[in-house]
Amino acid sequence: MEQLQMTRSTQLKTKPATDQLGFGRHFTDHMLLMDYSKGQGWHAPRIVPYGPLTLDPSAMVFHYGQEVFEGMKAYRTPQGEVVLFRPDMNLKRLNHSCERLSIPQVDEKALLDAIRQLIVLEKDWIPEGEGNSLYIRPFIIATEPGLGVRAAHDYLLLVILSPVGAYYSEGIHPVRIYVEDQYVRAVRGGTGEAKTSGNYASGIKAQEVAEGLGFSQVLWLDGVEHKYIEEVGSMNVFFKVNGEVITPALNGSILAGITRDSVIHMLKSWGVKVTERRISVEELYTAWQEGKLEEAFGTGTAAVISPIGFMKWEGHEMEINGGETGDYAKKLYDQLTGIQRGELDDPFSWRYVVR
Amino acid sequence: MEQLQMTRSTQLKTKPATDQLGFGRHFTDHMLLMDYSKGQGWHAPRIVPYGPLTLDPSAMVFHYGQEVFEGMKAYRTPQGEVVLFRPDMNLKRLNHSCERLSIPQVDEKALLDAIRQLIVLEKDWIPEGEGNSLYIRPFIIATEPGLGVRAAHDYLLLVILSPVGAYYSEGIHPVRIYVEDQYVRAVRGGTGEAKTSGNYASGIKAQEVAEGLGFSQVLWLDGVEHKYIEEVGSMNVFFKVNGEVITPALNGSILAGITRDSVIHMLKSWGVKVTERRISVEELYTAWQEGKLEEAFGTGTAAVISPIGFMKWEGHEMEINGGETGDYAKKLYDQLTGIQRGELDDPFSWRYVVR
Repeated sequence: MEQLQMTRSTQLKTKPATDQLGFGRHFTDHMLLMDYSKGQGWHAPRIVPYGPLTLDPSAMVFHYGQEVFEGMKAYRTPQGEVVLFRPDMNLKRLNHSCERLSIPQVDEKALLDAIRQLIVLEKDWIPEGEGNSLYIRPFIIATEPGLGVRAAHDYLLLVILSPVGAYYSEGIHPVRIYVEDQYVRAVRGGTGEAKTSGNYASGIKAQEVAEGLGFSQVLWLDGVEHKYIEEVGSMNVFFKVNGEVITPALNGSILAGITRDSVIHMLKSWGVKVTERRISVEELYTAWQEGKLEEAFGTGTAAVISPIGFMKWEGHEMEINGGETGDYAKKLYDQLTGIQRGELDDPFSWRYVVR
Repeated sequence: MEQLQMTRSTQLKTKPATDQLGFGRHFTDHMLLMDYSKGQGWHAPRIVPYGPLTLDPSAMVFHYGQEVFEGMKAYRTPQGEVVLFRPDMNLKRLNHSCERLSIPQVDEKALLDAIRQLIVLEKDWIPEGEGNSLYIRPFIIATEPGLGVRAAHDYLLLVILSPVGAYYSEGIHPVRIYVEDQYVRAVRGGTGEAKTSGNYASGIKAQEVAEGLGFSQVLWLDGVEHKYIEEVGSMNVFFKVNGEVITPALNGSILAGITRDSVIHMLKSWGVKVTERRISVEELYTAWQEGKLEEAFGTGTAAVISPIGFMKWEGHEMEINGGETGDYAKKLYDQLTGIQRGELDDPFSWRYVVR
């Protein structure tokens, strides 16, 4: 990759109060851009003042959705270092998504270094306070103007940064989940294992329906038989059944979450049996009836661990662990956020120090 | 809807030569815009000079793909009138797509009238020449800045116009089709019956693979069993088997094509038996083996009718009708384009005259 060019903003923004952050509502002073054009490849990496994009109305992203994205967070450690959590995994997954969407591959190492430079420049934007962090959103859009349905020849890669508040402003607490039996997020052969906009567009309707019924997230079933559990909202999902932890196997329509992978590693390191396999909602319900469904929780970058206290599937209502956060969920949340924030040892070498 | 405001371009573009049009590569001097914001609803419809959009990098369309679009064409009749083909159907489908994508509904009549005014202003852009037309692309994008996954509160509706060349520059001719058995376009419960960017993003990869193998389009099978025929490329598909015409029934994952509907009406008016039902690729292959697969063709706004001369499914290669355009395909193409262009009577009252 060429040398990164940097144009500093001449007028810095006022930073929001740390109790007013929310998620993805405020953006920092600068962003990272890089262009792709056919023949020339990826070129002109640059840090510029954060500002609007100018795109032709026929830019392909507006019509045929060629887009991929990632999400990760930067934390400030008690020692004053700035760290990322397994960013190599995010950039590897970005390229995996690119492959599915026919978007040209990026140089992962060079991109990580460019992100590092952006974060160094914006380090004062990493908010203080328990649970706050700087959310990093790399994404690629097809910018070529034209209405022919095909892979574009021109793309823009962007990285924008947003200071975000703690997901649980009043401490980790369980959510109510609706098992979706009509809408489908993704299917085998589709784009489910890619992080691309269409998967999220597809899920908005079901999310609205669930919210209208008093639930905070949807549990997605497989698109083929509407039987097997896939994800919860935009998170991976885990169940503790009779002492064993089970999570749906990566089958092509499930996103390979980095928090998911980390949770599997941590549980195994504690000697817990973790099984990645197909699990039906019916099996789960039977386990619940028999008193064996001990915990359920989602995993993702935003919430890290999101305990599930209640699930509704057709006519069946299941309270899990008395509606309280389970022991594994609590311990995983504490240890994982502890590692991410540099407050605990890093036995798996997951932290990447931004220097 | 409020009164449409109009700002004329002060510098008109040079129009491309009619033999250099292609598809969706040139755009006219003006475009139609309308804003939506929560509380205010759709407002500020306006015709302005065609030009770039300015959007925050966090605009939701770039991240979560909340987008819908339509496609239709304006033709100039031998009598000098400008006509659209069943535009009410397109705007009805636009709202149907909006419903699936949690985008607020538009006033179909008011939007059609606004499109009418845009076309009147741009009528000199309707290209002369057999098979040329002015392609109309209405679309709606989520413009609200922010990274929370939910329906946006702000949207922009656009209508852009592109003079397009004849799909078949050397006359209608059959294409070679690859029956896709790995990738999936859409599934029951997904967004397949909506015209939204994610469905197209999902298909680009398979299209590239098929092109690499020497085919021009992909025949999509259902996402559940990978057995039943859904669409071909971005068209609906019809088969003539032993005198009867069969097309996949609208099952929720198939786009309700307006050309599809028109073809069904025309065939029935000719006394042809038309059946909308589930049809497996295996059934089709058996019919081919028995010499009963007499014709196959796709239908869509761009090509109108696209005859299929050859299909490959797993190890099986099927030449259809000696690789030539079939009688129904030819007659449908001639009559439908004749009606669309005002060269034939309009027995179904499908033409909409732009005054």
